[in-house]
Order: sequence, then C-alpha cells, then structure tokens
Amino acid sequence: MELSDREYLERLFEAFYEVGALPGGGVTRLGYTELEDEMHRRFADLAGELGCRIEIDLAGNSYAFSEEAEEYVLIGSHLDSVIQGGRYDGVAGVMAGLLLLKRAKEAGLKLPLKAAAFRCEESSNFGCCTMGSGLVTGQLKEGPDRLSQLMGKDGVHLGDVFARRGLSLTPPRITGVKQYLELHIEQGKVLEETGARVGVVSTIAGPRRWKLQLKGLAEHSGATPMSMRQDALCAAAEIVLAVERIGQREAVRCESVATVGVIQNTPNALNVIPGAAELGIDLRGSDMDSLDRMEQDTLRTAREICARRRIDLLESKLSEMDPVRMDEGIQRGLAAAAERLSISCRNMPSGAGHDAMAFAPLFPTGMVFIPCKKGISHNPLESATLESILDGADVLWEYLRGMD
Amino acid sequence: MELSDREYLERLFEAFYEVGALPGGGVTRLGYTELEDEMHRRFADLAGELGCRIEIDLAGNSYAFSEEAEEYVLIGSHLDSVIQGGRYDGVAGVMAGLLLLKRAKEAGLKLPLKAAAFRCEESSNFGCCTMGSGLVTGQLKEGPDRLSQLMGKDGVHLGDVFARRGLSLTPPRITGVKQYLELHIEQGKVLEETGARVGVVSTIAGPRRWKLQLKGLAEHSGATPMSMRQDALCAAAEIVLAVERIGQREAVRCESVATVGVIQNTPNALNVIPGAAELGIDLRGSDMDSLDRMEQDTLRTAREICARRRIDLLESKLSEMDPVRMDEGIQRGLAAAAERLSISCRNMPSGAGHDAMAFAPLFPTGMVFIPCKKGISHNPLESATLESILDGADVLWEYLRGMD
Repeated sequence: MELSDREYLERLFEAFYEVGALPGGGVTRLGYTELEDEMHRRFADLAGELGCRIEIDLAGNSYAFSEEAEEYVLIGSHLDSVIQGGRYDGVAGVMAGLLLLKRAKEAGLKLPLKAAAFRCEESSNFGCCTMGSGLVTGQLKEGPDRLSQLMGKDGVHLGDVFARRGLSLTPPRITGVKQYLELHIEQGKVLEETGARVGVVSTIAGPRRWKLQLKGLAEHSGATPMSMRQDALCAAAEIVLAVERIGQREAVRCESVATVGVIQNTPNALNVIPGAAELGIDLRGSDMDSLDRMEQDTLRTAREICARRRIDLLESKLSEMDPVRMDEGIQRGLAAAAERLSISCRNMPSGAGHDAMAFAPLFPTGMVFIPCKKGISHNPLESATLESILDGADVLWEYLRGMD
Repeated sequence: MELSDREYLERLFEAFYEVGALPGGGVTRLGYTELEDEMHRRFADLAGELGCRIEIDLAGNSYAFSEEAEEYVLIGSHLDSVIQGGRYDGVAGVMAGLLLLKRAKEAGLKLPLKAAAFRCEESSNFGCCTMGSGLVTGQLKEGPDRLSQLMGKDGVHLGDVFARRGLSLTPPRITGVKQYLELHIEQGKVLEETGARVGVVSTIAGPRRWKLQLKGLAEHSGATPMSMRQDALCAAAEIVLAVERIGQREAVRCESVATVGVIQNTPNALNVIPGAAELGIDLRGSDMDSLDRMEQDTLRTAREICARRRIDLLESKLSEMDPVRMDEGIQRGLAAAAERLSISCRNMPSGAGHDAMAFAPLFPTGMVFIPCKKGISHNPLESATLESILDGADVLWEYLRGMD
C-alpha cells in the first residue's frame, strides 16, 4: 500500500509518539539517555523500512542513506527534548529528512542524500547544547576534559556515559557534506502572526549572556525609612526595565532581542529590604553592531542605576557566541523554491540555536522554519501541523530537485 | 564586690554570649529550640544571683521577681533570634529588665517589678511572631489547631514541640500587669542619624502584606520578538518601582514605608521569557489613612501595569495588623524622665513588631528604643553599646521611680 506524504508523516510522528511521553502531555527525552537511544532505534527501524542503511558515528549520531557517496546533502535535526518539552522540536526536522529520503528513492533523485538524527541538541541534560553535531564538526568550545566532567541530571558524568556506550568525546570530523539543510519549528510566533507558511533563516542569532550581581544593604523593612535604603531589588527592577527598553529599540533597528530571564533576590524575605540581587541577561541578535550596542548600553545603564542607588555592581560575562550566517545561495535557492510552489515564505533570523550552527562554519548551510502554534516551544503545549512539516519538506524537495 | 551598672550589663551580655554563636559572628537562637532553652536557663541563673525567684508560664516564658505581688510592672523582651541574627535584638531588653530588678532590690523600690523573657518573638522558626507573649495575652490570631500544625525549621510541628516540653497552646492569660515596658534596639538608623540617645515609641506600625501573582507567557527568549512578549518579570519590575515610589510619597507625609522583599520568577532560566512572577509586598505605617492609601495605590498601579502588559494578576492579602498605639501617659512619662536625666530623646514610630504589641491591647504599654549601629539588625553585624542600654535603662528607672 502506497502511503501519501501526509500519511507517511503521520506514521513517523506516531512511531516516535510514546517515547518519553508524560502523563500531562508532552515528552521528556534527554540527550544521551535510554529514551533518546530508543528514539534513535526507531529512526533506524524507519530507515530500514525505506530500504536505507544506517550509520552511527562515535558521538552517537545516526545517519540514514541509500548508498554510500563521496559527497552528499545532509538533512538533519535532533531527537532529544528538554524536560517537559514538546513533540516537534527537532523531531519535525528528522521526519522531514526521512520523508525526503523516501521521495528521493521513489523519484530516483541522483543527488546523494543523508538524513541525520543528532544527539543531545538541548542543554537540558548536561548544560551544553548541540553536543552531537558539535562534536563531529569540532565546533564545541569545551575541550574533551571539560566535557567529560559535565554532569547529567541523573548525576553521572558525560565521560562515563560515553565510555559505557563506546562513544568518543574526540570523534573523527564529519566529511563529504556538500550542503547541510535543516527543517525546524520556529519556536516563535512570527510566521503565525505574519501568516507566512515557511521561513528561510538568514542568521542564527548569537547570544551574549551576562550575570549582574547587585549588593545593597539588607535592613529591616519596617524600621528603615525610605530615604535611608540601599534596596538591591529596586536597582534590579530598574535594570530589568532598561534591558527591555534597549531590546525594544534594537528590535526596531535590527530584530534583536534582550531579556532578563533570571533573578535571584536575597534574603527574599517579606520583612527584609533586599540586600542583594542577581540578574541573568540574554542579548541576541544577528547584527554584531546591534549586539555591541545592547551590551554596552546594558552595562552603562546598570552602572548608572547602581551608582545612583549606592549599590555595588559586579558584572560577569557568561557566554558569547557570534551570530552564524546561513549560506546566501541556499537562502536564495530555498526562497525561489518556495515561490515556485506558491508557498508563502519569509526571510527571518533565528533567535534560537540549532544543529545548523555547528555546520555553518564548515559547510554551506541553510534552514527552513515552519510555524508552531502560538510560538510555544520547550513546553508540552508545543504544537505544529503535519501540513506545515509537509510545506517545509516540499520547499526542501523543490530546492534539492533544482540541484539534481 | 559591687559591680557598677556598666559592669553588670557586661556580665549579662557575656553570660548569653556564646549561646548559638556562629563561626562568622552573630548568633542563631531559634524560638522553642534547645538554644533558646539554654538562654532561659541562663536568665534563671542570673535572676538567682540577684536573689530573685523564677516563674515559667505554660508558653515557656520566664519571669524573674523578688516577691509575689497582685500587681506589678512587667519589663520584658525576648531571648530568641532570627537565623544569623545579632546579639542585641531582644537580649538588650531582657538585660535592662534584670538591671532594673537589681537596682530595685538595691534601692528598695516599693513598686513590684517583674522582668520577663518571652519565647519565640521572631517568626524565623515557625513563621509566626511574638508567640510567647502572644499566647499568654491571647493576642495570636491563629487558633491552637492551626498553631499546632506550624512546622519548625527542623521539620517538627509546634504541637509536638509543645507536647514534648509540657507546654500548652492555650495557656492561662497573664494577669496583674499594671504596665508593660520594653527596651529594644531600634533596628533602624533614625536615632543614630538624628543623634538622639533614646527613642520613645509612639506607635508600632501595622504591617499589611500582599502577595501578587503575575502570569504572562513563558516563551523562547531568542525566538520571540520584543513586540510579541508578555514578560511577567518586566511587569513585576514596574510594580517593584511603583511600590517604592508610593512608599517614598507616604514617607514624607506619614513616615510610612513600602517594600517588595520577595520575588519569585518562573521558570527563571536564561533562555526563557519569564512566564510568571510572584511578589511579596510589605506596607507599614502608623497612620491608618496612609496604610489605606498605600494599599489602594499599590493594587491600582499593579492592575494598570498588568492590564497594559497583558499579564494576569492574582492578588492575595497575606496579613493585616492595625498599628498599635503605645499608652500616651507612659510616652509622656518616659519623655519627661529622659528630660530630667538630660538624655536626648525622640518620639518615633516603630516599624518593626515587638512583644509590646501583644500587651498594648490589654495593659498600658510603653517602649524605649536605643540606637543600633548603622541601623543594622537581623544580621551578625548588629551592634549596640552597653552605654545605650544603660541610657534606656536609666530612663525606665527614672520613670519607675516616679511611680513609686
């Protein structure tokens, strides 16, 4: 019985469905755990059904393909999830890869393809993201010693996890990748709100992350007059709003974003004026100048606020990644393919990180976004339609046919 | 060998010194624990040295006195501390009580006196304050069933703690109190900054406490444009600053204060826009109209902010206590006593709660404040001088002599 594309995608979705399913909805499939293993076994089974072979590299990533080839187009994404995540983040892209393999086989595409399922793209288990793709592209900043010491949510070090599985923290680099393509849910609501059916990613934003530690004076909230206070939380609140304003200004100019996601207040008691507060700030953008401006303005404003309020300020940069540009030719090619199919398409940055970040420095790389409901992701409520996955796969297929 | 008053206070201070002492300075002497028991044993020993008798009531409070009397002036404070607290909060008042007992004995004061050491004045162990004094005055709002279920920091219920000690959550009411007097460190820096040697308390501020729960939308911090966000932390930050402004305005008019001491942010992750935030707000003042204005303005502003930002707001009142006025006659008497001694004196409200709150509704009650260094309290750095304790005790003594 021949399955329609829509039916095949449904079959793929159901094949992965119950792995790590949570009673309240959603899934937890942490990277380099038994549940992620089970996802990869199912990927291998599905590839086998197509008559494809499976290769597993020394980082544990799985590749499905019809025939060995010197050069190939790699279509990948990941099969792990965050804690209490959704069923589309990563999986949608792997499903698209399998569907394209199937089509290539049926239509006799000459261009060699591989569909990849990467390991541990989320930082939820080991605090480090794009591990599988980063290891085989040599793009992880952390060296093997540091990686080995990372501790998973179950308290086991990554070094032991790898040893037990016969994997290597220094695997051979991947070769032969002519282009890397990835379909992913947007994890935002730009496509939904603008009504575009697919997005072609221009740049994956580089996050710059800062920790600001504020030290004021913890005093009795009842006994300390308003005029005599050094309230760390009030200073922190001013900084939160300043970061928002800076983000709003740069959003208009460069589609940047700025977020205070973390606040720790000390002693956090009803009857004590906050004596210390800590903020975690996440600045993202595709434009280096915009990132620089946001960073400088954030720090300058924080210093002004703290000086005025007699609060000590300690600044530490947590991380910095430069924005990663997607290949211009691939962007144009994907947009042209969408146009030929009359699938409405929007060129847009990606605020979130993806496996494509690991490939872009080495190989021509492109990404297609599909809408997800209300932009909700990393959440059991995450939802996308099979029609959207089909839209994205259609655009990739049309693009690949153009290369054939 | 006769000890001078200064030497006697030093001896008292040293007698309590090492109980619950912390390596980094300060003390932890939680209410209804072994350490507080030890403080009361030492109080009894010190009373014994003076040739005084000790009485312990069914809430565990200790009373020292020379002779049983129908009516007596009660001079009290507490011997417990907060976690990582100082050595003067409470203890200074108990020391003053013992010194006045000693003087009364030596000078042959006819007016009967009792020096009291109350239990568990701080809310640090069971989340409930002025327990010892509140139980014997019947002023605790919580009934015995609810009190019985309160859980201490060591995980044991108050009911079990009381049963084990042979205490009762429904002890007989205290009787025979002609007046209640208390010396306490200010726990603020008004006396220090205005240069007054003692304060006569006019009113103990009534705290009104609110919990505000804000619900926005937790979304990917990288993938959600600034214009599409419902950031609960940004709304919370605006409220924090609004509460500060409201407090500042009412400080000028009525010496009120307003504090956001507590903030909980969810999920509190660097890469997620805060989806929910919770604020704990503490409004205090001696003026009921000012308290009403602060409360109404806080809620109205929070509602405006949340409506504008599309944030759901849930308001819950945690507690409300009316301001407690000290007896006018005692206030005048204490101020006159200070004047006779040429001890500079300031009439002032108390922002913090004290055992005196439990007595004021039943008996004529007055309080004397003494300065503490930089206003720091509930902190290992808390410090007051023995000279200040002597100043306060002198004023109380002069006042008592006037009654004799």
